Amino acid sequence: MQTLSKTEPQLLELKKRLTEIRDIEAASAVLYWDQATYMPPGGAAARGRQMATLQQIAHEKFVDPAIGQLLEDLQPYADSLPYDSFEASLVRIARRNYDRAVQVPSAFVAQFSLHRAESYNVWAKARPENDFAAVRPYLEKTVELSREYANFFPGYEHIADPLINNTDYGMKANTLRELFGQLRSHLVPIVEAIAANPPADDACLRQHFPEAQQVDFGLEVLERLGYDFQRGRQDKTHHPFTTSFSIGDVRITTRYDEYNLNEGLSSTIHEMGHALYELGFDPQLEGTPLADGVSSGVHESQSRLWENLVGRSREFCTYFYPRLQALFSSQLADVSLDTFYRALNKVQRGLIRTEADEVTYNLHVTLRFDLELALLEGQLAVRDLPEAWNARYKADLGIVPDSDRVGCLQDVHWYTGVVGGMFQGYTLGNLMSVQFYQAAIASNPHIPESLRQGEFGPLHEWLKHNIYALGCKYTAAELVERATGKPLSIDPFIGYIRQKYGQLYTL
Amino acid sequence: MQTLSKTEPQLLELKKRLTEIRDIEAASAVLYWDQATYMPPGGAAARGRQMATLQQIAHEKFVDPAIGQLLEDLQPYADSLPYDSFEASLVRIARRNYDRAVQVPSAFVAQFSLHRAESYNVWAKARPENDFAAVRPYLEKTVELSREYANFFPGYEHIADPLINNTDYGMKANTLRELFGQLRSHLVPIVEAIAANPPADDACLRQHFPEAQQVDFGLEVLERLGYDFQRGRQDKTHHPFTTSFSIGDVRITTRYDEYNLNEGLSSTIHEMGHALYELGFDPQLEGTPLADGVSSGVHESQSRLWENLVGRSREFCTYFYPRLQALFSSQLADVSLDTFYRALNKVQRGLIRTEADEVTYNLHVTLRFDLELALLEGQLAVRDLPEAWNARYKADLGIVPDSDRVGCLQDVHWYTGVVGGMFQGYTLGNLMSVQFYQAAIASNPHIPESLRQGEFGPLHEWLKHNIYALGCKYTAAELVERATGKPLSIDPFIGYIRQKYGQLYTL
Repeated sequence: MQTLSKTEPQLLELKKRLTEIRDIEAASAVLYWDQATYMPPGGAAARGRQMATLQQIAHEKFVDPAIGQLLEDLQPYADSLPYDSFEASLVRIARRNYDRAVQVPSAFVAQFSLHRAESYNVWAKARPENDFAAVRPYLEKTVELSREYANFFPGYEHIADPLINNTDYGMKANTLRELFGQLRSHLVPIVEAIAANPPADDACLRQHFPEAQQVDFGLEVLERLGYDFQRGRQDKTHHPFTTSFSIGDVRITTRYDEYNLNEGLSSTIHEMGHALYELGFDPQLEGTPLADGVSSGVHESQSRLWENLVGRSREFCTYFYPRLQALFSSQLADVSLDTFYRALNKVQRGLIRTEADEVTYNLHVTLRFDLELALLEGQLAVRDLPEAWNARYKADLGIVPDSDRVGCLQDVHWYTGVVGGMFQGYTLGNLMSVQFYQAAIASNPHIPESLRQGEFGPLHEWLKHNIYALGCKYTAAELVERATGKPLSIDPFIGYIRQKYGQLYTL
Repeated sequence: MQTLSKTEPQLLELKKRLTEIRDIEAASAVLYWDQATYMPPGGAAARGRQMATLQQIAHEKFVDPAIGQLLEDLQPYADSLPYDSFEASLVRIARRNYDRAVQVPSAFVAQFSLHRAESYNVWAKARPENDFAAVRPYLEKTVELSREYANFFPGYEHIADPLINNTDYGMKANTLRELFGQLRSHLVPIVEAIAANPPADDACLRQHFPEAQQVDFGLEVLERLGYDFQRGRQDKTHHPFTTSFSIGDVRITTRYDEYNLNEGLSSTIHEMGHALYELGFDPQLEGTPLADGVSSGVHESQSRLWENLVGRSREFCTYFYPRLQALFSSQLADVSLDTFYRALNKVQRGLIRTEADEVTYNLHVTLRFDLELALLEGQLAVRDLPEAWNARYKADLGIVPDSDRVGCLQDVHWYTGVVGGMFQGYTLGNLMSVQFYQAAIASNPHIPESLRQGEFGPLHEWLKHNIYALGCKYTAAELVERATGKPLSIDPFIGYIRQKYGQLYTL
């Protein structure tokens, strides 16, 4: 065992280097935020180059062998400390990231990143033109490069595992396929049963809701739910996102549709969930790699928990609907709370993932996950993707896209130049969101009543303490066990869906 | 003589490295802009660190001996090309900057920059508290470090010269002292003569002008004057500034005073002048050190030309005043064009530089310049600064500050931790602005008439061609000669002041 006094200079040096890298990454994030919000069009060309420069510098600084040496030197010291101590966790997570980064040759990183930019640009043009043929060669290259990438990590169980490790570290393709298969076997019949019911009437959400008032309502909701405007802000962008420049500055963006009240409200609450997570990191983690979400799944669990478990609950409506009615009296005066609640939770077999309700959403995701695996395994050729996509929509959702634009061209993910690890986080997030929420209620049964009264602090506190503050010290599996006392499972989610939608529909 | 084919790889490598450095500096500028405009308060701590990190990296990359070697290798090639060719200019300017940067040891740079941050923080607190004693030890250290800095450049004629080289490269303290002395000998009696007149009535500018309408008018002015909102934008900040992230993205900020119409309008036009300059660089210069203003003086000449020569002209008022009257009819309906023009050009012996009119402005500047030199020479001790300041205000402007807050604590410049080279650019800019403007008119006598008709294109074109497009290929002295056919002189400025203010007052 080494003592702190002996290793302190190395620890300080490691932290200094890691903070420098975080600073560069944060700068790049500011550039991205500015590009999406306020940048004039003339800034675009230089901006792309500037972000690429920063990312390149951050990468070079991270794969510096000096960092490898520091991590090596600090290992005995870290081993002597408790697993979840700041120092041991810092060395562990930095080492995990470092080992993964140096595994991939710089030349490949450069080639991959060039391909990714090209692929995205081709897709951005091909999608509105419904032109799958245009993206096909790029997607073929993407599959090839993704496989090549995976092969820098020999010893994997499934070729998707190294790619999944980039987004949901520690999750395995085979386990997920099994889990998602079970989930699907429950959901397909539930969705069929719901489809046999008369459809919910969501006309009340489809009236004209002027944007300025939607903004006001959104800000009221954010404030009430606990988003701290001293440490964040909300702006409008084409695609909503959350970005963090430090623990004291985590910003969200949203968009509004004047003829769909659901759009702005759910996107606002969704992004706020992501932001509350990053605003809740223990301040000690600032500037270190521990100030990060555990994984794509855990991050998504926080956005979905607030968006769905809270924002689509009867409790939420009980508190906020009278306020919404007062704001939009001409549109909502005659719409009952029950009608509004049913509209907000309308289940519909649609083609578009991002517009899907809680029940069908995971069917959109799990089919993409299975197609990803098949592409990587070589079981599915890119040329056969549209057909496979459409067949799976028919099987799982009973409908078939009439064009690739609303079919296999709809999501940007694969066309950013990576296949593998792109989608599982959404469903993992949905599963975890219910498991976390139920654990919070088990620990504080007063939570649902407090939501009804517009008090979101008790829930927020539980999440902060059990999830947010920890940063990425634990893996997703560890965090779920620690926060809920049980391993990840589909049961809470299925139970939640059956109960909530059993009250809305005959199942 | 070397051929291009032989040196091309080195030239490309040099450009690549210099562009990388520009990208990092641009990123730092975006972070600063964001901090001043939209950053929530919680972001402040990390933001300071992030900007320092980027500046440190940019500095390290610039003083890399590999750049010195490339410049060395490229010298014969550059020598074989015309002085003002892109390649020769790039090598010349990069070399000048490089040689100056490597002259100062990194340890000193770090110490200086630490001191600068401390000094600023102490001043920010001491100024509102009128506490010169608090800043005194910091200012003493500043003088000491500024002298130490200058001594890294042995062989200077005056100890201020190396510091002046940072802002107005090539200008000499002794020459400037002589020039400014002559200027003062003209201005002091002019100001005295004006003070003997009844004061101009500017009550029309001091009414209540709601901010939203001021913003609208400012935007109309910017648009009409030729600021391109596709390549820039205007936001509100506490202190107005201009910042450039690339030739395609040059932003300005402004502030408004609802009880002083002059404030927002002149700050808007002033910053626009800076922005037009940087928007007008030849696109070939993008990403290189040539995409920069020549000097503080030349930059200021462009802001002052638009702010004063255009924005305070009778021609400008002839076109815009009827529009302003229509917008603010309750305030201005009964105010004649002549009254408005006189109010806009009111001369007043005041204490505050930033509020000074065209006539007194240079007296504020030249006294600061002389005090700077005296501090650096050791002729003036920091403890005697307030007394010297007040005596000089008495001598030059006939009034004495009743507190240091409006005396020697008013400007941030020295308290950013540097004495020397801080002020001469303002007066150089005023002198050059008239010389440039008169050259433009000599080349196109139709310009004043076009301004009267709201056509600012002809003036803008002349400036683009003769100043903006060139970036910093030439020194200030070269540029003035080239654009006006004459060396820098005080005569055009004095002639302009005598003529314009001779019509407004009995001189």
